[in-house]
Amino acid sequence: MIDQAVIGIDLGGTKIAGGIFHSGGDLKHKEVIFIENKTGPAVGASILSMVDTLLAKSQDLALKVSAVGVAVPGIYHPSKGTVWAPNISGWEDYPLMSELRAHLGKNMGVCIDSDRACYILGEAWKGAAIGCKHAVFLAVGTGIGAGILVDGKVLRGAHDIAGAMGWMALTDTFLPGYKECGCFEYHASGEGLARRAQQLQKALPNINAGAKNFPMTTPQVFEKYELGNPVAQQAIKESIQLWGKGVANLVSLFNPEKIIFGGGVFGPAGRFLPDIQQEAIKWAQPISMIRVNLEVSQLGGEAGLYGAAYLALNKSPAP
Amino acid sequence: MIDQAVIGIDLGGTKIAGGIFHSGGDLKHKEVIFIENKTGPAVGASILSMVDTLLAKSQDLALKVSAVGVAVPGIYHPSKGTVWAPNISGWEDYPLMSELRAHLGKNMGVCIDSDRACYILGEAWKGAAIGCKHAVFLAVGTGIGAGILVDGKVLRGAHDIAGAMGWMALTDTFLPGYKECGCFEYHASGEGLARRAQQLQKALPNINAGAKNFPMTTPQVFEKYELGNPVAQQAIKESIQLWGKGVANLVSLFNPEKIIFGGGVFGPAGRFLPDIQQEAIKWAQPISMIRVNLEVSQLGGEAGLYGAAYLALNKSPAP
Repeated sequence: MIDQAVIGIDLGGTKIAGGIFHSGGDLKHKEVIFIENKTGPAVGASILSMVDTLLAKSQDLALKVSAVGVAVPGIYHPSKGTVWAPNISGWEDYPLMSELRAHLGKNMGVCIDSDRACYILGEAWKGAAIGCKHAVFLAVGTGIGAGILVDGKVLRGAHDIAGAMGWMALTDTFLPGYKECGCFEYHASGEGLARRAQQLQKALPNINAGAKNFPMTTPQVFEKYELGNPVAQQAIKESIQLWGKGVANLVSLFNPEKIIFGGGVFGPAGRFLPDIQQEAIKWAQPISMIRVNLEVSQLGGEAGLYGAAYLALNKSPAP
Repeated sequence: MIDQAVIGIDLGGTKIAGGIFHSGGDLKHKEVIFIENKTGPAVGASILSMVDTLLAKSQDLALKVSAVGVAVPGIYHPSKGTVWAPNISGWEDYPLMSELRAHLGKNMGVCIDSDRACYILGEAWKGAAIGCKHAVFLAVGTGIGAGILVDGKVLRGAHDIAGAMGWMALTDTFLPGYKECGCFEYHASGEGLARRAQQLQKALPNINAGAKNFPMTTPQVFEKYELGNPVAQQAIKESIQLWGKGVANLVSLFNPEKIIFGGGVFGPAGRFLPDIQQEAIKWAQPISMIRVNLEVSQLGGEAGLYGAAYLALNKSPAP
C-alpha cells in the first residue's frame, strides 16, 4: 500500500535541509547538504537535486509525494514567484517558483514562504504553538526576525516584509550601526551579543585578565556566563533587557497567546526566559502580558523544515 | 420612497456623538450630547436615548434604519457582548450588547467595537485609507492607541486587546510613571507632551520669564511653538523623536500601506509629519519605510462615527 507524503525543504544561508513527511505529519526521512560557496542558479540546482534525492527515497519508503514546500532565508514574493535572500549571492530576485514548477511538472503542488513564516507555521502545526491562532515565533540567531500568526494566518503585510523585528527601535539614541540591521538586531542578535561582550572586555573597569583573555564569540558568552565571568554576565543582562522590551512590544501590539523563542541563541538563552518575562512585565500592556505564554521552540532547528512541510500539505491536491 | 440607512454612535469619555448614514455612505444628520457626570447604566441609557432620537429623525428624513453600530472608548469583548471602558465609571464589564438588543428588538442589526477599530475602519471606508488592506490609525490624544488593519480585517488579538500602542517600549530606562499607561503614552500623548513641557519649564536653564510664566497645556505647547518658545520647541522635538520611533516599529512589524495620524494631537501636530517621517526613516526596515505613506486623518473627530456606521452597514440584514 502506498501512503501519501509531502517534501519539506529548509534553505538556510549555509545548508539545505530536506525531509519526507507522512501526510499524518511524521518526519520519515531527513537529508542535509551544505551550500559551500555556491551562488545564484547553483543554489537552485542544489535544491532541485535535494528534491530528486527525496523523491527517490520516498519510493523506497512506499510513499507518494504530492507536494513540495520550501522555506527561504529572506522574503518570498508570491505575486512574482521570486525570492530575495540577502545572504545568498545572486538571489536578489531569484525565480525559484518557476524553476521548481518546470522541474516538477504540473501534478506536483509547490509552495514557498519565508523561513520566519515557516517557523511559526511549523510550531503551530507540530510544536509549541499547537492550537494557537495568535502567536509569534521570535527567531534570534545571527539576525532577528519574527513569524507572526494573526487569526491563524501568517502576517505578510502589503509587500511581504512584515515581521522585520530586528529593526525595532528600543533605545534612546540612534547609533550608526543600526543602519545595516536595525536597533534590536544590532544589540540583541547572536552577533550583537558577541559584539557587546567584546566592547565590555575593553571597557569594563576592574576586569581581571582571566575575563579578558579569550575570544568572545556568542557560544563563549554563554559558556563564560556559567563560570561567573563578569563580561559575559553584563552582556547577557543587557540582552535580557532588550529581549524583554521586544517581547513587551509584541505583547502590547498583537495580544498573542504565545511567543515562541527560537533560532541559534534560544538554544542557550532559553534558560533566561523567566528573566525576559520579568523585564517584559515592566513594559507591556498588563492584561495582555498576564495572558501570554513565553516558551522555547519545541522543534528547534527543524521548525523551518516542519513549516515547509506544512505549506506543502496545505498545497496538496485533494486525494 | 424610503431609502435604507444605518446609525453610527461614537461613545467618548465626555460625550456621545450619533449620526444617520445613508446606505450609500453619506452622513445625513448628526447629534452630540454630553455625558457630564453620568456613570454605569446612566451612560447606557444616554446611548439608547440618542438612538431613539436618531430613529425618530430618520423617519423625518424618509430613511429606514436597518442597523446600529457603536464605537466604545476601550475594549469590546464579542464573546460576552460586554465593554471595558476605563474612563467611564461602572463600565468595567458593561453589558452593552444585551441592552441594545433588548431595546431595539431582533429586526435591527447591532454591532459594537473599540474606538480604535472604528477609527481605522472609518478611514478605510471613507477617509485616508480607502483601498488599503494593510493600514494603521495611530490615535494620539489624551492617550495613545492604534487601530490596525491586517489583510482588510481589524487586528483583535487573542483577547481583543491588540493595538495597545501606548505601552510600546521606546526608551532605555524604565520610569515609574510608565506603570499606569505605558512608555510611549507617558511621553508622547497629549498629556505626556504637556507634562514634559511643564518639566522643561522648571528644568531648562536660561529660559526667560516669558517662556516660564504661562500654564503649559497641550494646546498651549503648540501655540507657543509657533511663537518660538524654547520650552515648547524642545518638548515637541522630543515628541517627534518618539512618534518617529513608534511609526518605525509599526512599519517594520506590519509593513502597512499607510499610517494615518488622528486623535486630538493630530490636529495641530499634523504639520510635523515630515519631521516624524525623517525620524522614522532612521529606525525602520528601509524597504517597508520607502513604501509606506504617512497621512493625517481625513475624518478627524468623526473617524469613530464613520467606523461605527461602517460596522452597522456590514451588519445590516440583506435588503
